[in-house]
Amino acid sequence: MSRAALDAVIRRIEPVDRAAGRAAQGAFDRKTKPRGSLGELESLACRVAAIRGTASPGRLRAAVVLAAGDHGYAAREVSAYPQEVTGQMLANFASGGAAVNVLARETGAQLVVVDAGVAAPVEHEAIRQLRLGAGTADATKGPAMTPDQALAGLRGGAEIAAELAAGGSGIVATGDMGIGNTTAAAALCAALLPADSEAVSGRGTGLDDAGLARKVETVRRALTVNAVDAADPVGVLASVGGFELAVLAGVCLGAAAEGCVVLLDGFVTGAAALVAARLAPAAAGFMVASHRSPEPGHALVLTDLGLRPLLDLGLRLGEGSGALLALPLVHASLALLADMATFDAAGVTDAGA
Amino acid sequence: MSRAALDAVIRRIEPVDRAAGRAAQGAFDRKTKPRGSLGELESLACRVAAIRGTASPGRLRAAVVLAAGDHGYAAREVSAYPQEVTGQMLANFASGGAAVNVLARETGAQLVVVDAGVAAPVEHEAIRQLRLGAGTADATKGPAMTPDQALAGLRGGAEIAAELAAGGSGIVATGDMGIGNTTAAAALCAALLPADSEAVSGRGTGLDDAGLARKVETVRRALTVNAVDAADPVGVLASVGGFELAVLAGVCLGAAAEGCVVLLDGFVTGAAALVAARLAPAAAGFMVASHRSPEPGHALVLTDLGLRPLLDLGLRLGEGSGALLALPLVHASLALLADMATFDAAGVTDAGA
Repeated sequence: MSRAALDAVIRRIEPVDRAAGRAAQGAFDRKTKPRGSLGELESLACRVAAIRGTASPGRLRAAVVLAAGDHGYAAREVSAYPQEVTGQMLANFASGGAAVNVLARETGAQLVVVDAGVAAPVEHEAIRQLRLGAGTADATKGPAMTPDQALAGLRGGAEIAAELAAGGSGIVATGDMGIGNTTAAAALCAALLPADSEAVSGRGTGLDDAGLARKVETVRRALTVNAVDAADPVGVLASVGGFELAVLAGVCLGAAAEGCVVLLDGFVTGAAALVAARLAPAAAGFMVASHRSPEPGHALVLTDLGLRPLLDLGLRLGEGSGALLALPLVHASLALLADMATFDAAGVTDAGA
Repeated sequence: MSRAALDAVIRRIEPVDRAAGRAAQGAFDRKTKPRGSLGELESLACRVAAIRGTASPGRLRAAVVLAAGDHGYAAREVSAYPQEVTGQMLANFASGGAAVNVLARETGAQLVVVDAGVAAPVEHEAIRQLRLGAGTADATKGPAMTPDQALAGLRGGAEIAAELAAGGSGIVATGDMGIGNTTAAAALCAALLPADSEAVSGRGTGLDDAGLARKVETVRRALTVNAVDAADPVGVLASVGGFELAVLAGVCLGAAAEGCVVLLDGFVTGAAALVAARLAPAAAGFMVASHRSPEPGHALVLTDLGLRPLLDLGLRLGEGSGALLALPLVHASLALLADMATFDAAGVTDAGA
């Protein structure tokens, strides 16, 4: 992918339609309930209205893109799990036994499983092959990938989002899998926010104190060795990111370009969203944060993106699980906006409270 | 209803089955995910397992009981809305235009609308008539209702819950409507927790400062005039409560006696749950808190009941809306427990993290 093709996607991302959001709030204020009494459900539906560019967005279909990749960081012992688990879980996604599968069935969301570059490929018709390599290189010794690989991931992600939008999805959720990928996410956040390594490094799926110390040092070394420049988001992504992070950043950009709601999961998808927002600041307006991750860097990312998560349930799984747990709230907010009676129609006295 | 009949319901409420809850946690720990990574979703499903008395509760059908009543408190100008709105909203529930209707359809929950005693009755086949009177008396001048009315409400609520359980509902949610009922709820909480009037009185659907001051004084006077005794929950309910609160407390007791999950909404249903828990302390083990209300008394009720809410979205509508917004999380937690693959079955390495 040339950089020009990426720029073409970015140019299509326009600010959301605030007038449509205000009109949706006006519609809520005529519904049979005290004004504002549905709290953040109202602001959620109004944000969706602004994203969709209409005060009446109606019901929306949802898809979740779950991208998996392996990481050279795994060699630094920054995960409680061995690298082989990435591929094993990819097979689990393909055969339908993981949390994301259960939740996609439960919510009626379409699930797109993407191999963005696991170490050992998994052959399965349910896996979309977008392999940028067989795992990234160890970023503490040089760049995790080449700029061309990063651009290919961004393009591939954007293309998947465009396909989903063309297929009728108005909501595109993101999910991640990759042993070591909270280290990659931490490195991206440290470079792009910017922030100290300690402030963005957490225990992931269960690191002990020694593991956390290794992770903090790994992030610091990756940033130093690669001499990252926050003004060059693609360069940062290539230097210290990951294949699934590149694809997910591309999904964010592509979905925003298509006017879809971008429903984020936790810290890793948040880091991918941050890359997207650095490339196209208007993309943040299309994002909805599903839950607050216990990873310390996540709060910093959410603040940077101006997002407030819907759930705070101590989720730390990834896979898009948090996004799919929040999805019914998005659906409910739109159903309320579409279907509730007005004071006039129902003959209910409006005190205007 | 004789008090003996109430005691018969109460005697059937046994402590939940903690062993079943632990067994469900054991099952989660064999699923393909880091241990505990689904956070409060895991503890939620395990609580349901304990309530249902089985490590494999499977999927559960849900119903919501929405009880409406009018209040003598309304004469004290403690609501931003006129009393006529209770009956108007009851008609709106019957014709399907309110938030609770939309959310019940969205979640597939059965909706049972109960007239527990609005001022002007509404004739509609979709309204269950359990009228304890035409609104309560002004509790600042004497008891809101007689002990017999309170007992009839408790019995009627318990009977509805038993019918729903017999019809296949494993989850019974509660919802309320009644202009002035956050004052009744505040008075119940002040008496039963106990707590100061200021600590449990909030702005409800939109009171200004003067209205809030009237509310605080109204609660204080109701408690003084009636010389409430916290050791007599039925007496407290009759003195300062409300018709829909009596019915909802009965729903909590009846649902617990049938081994159903009792899914609470906000402050008013929380006050009803507190009455139920004072009558049968084991009933609290069957309750799940859906959301945190902005009403200041709600946090005190939740702490007293030992509950932690799933959502915190600034909801202040009532009607069971918060309960139905949280219901998909309950469904999702049970689907995950039932359907996720184990490490063994999926061939995924378990690091035990």
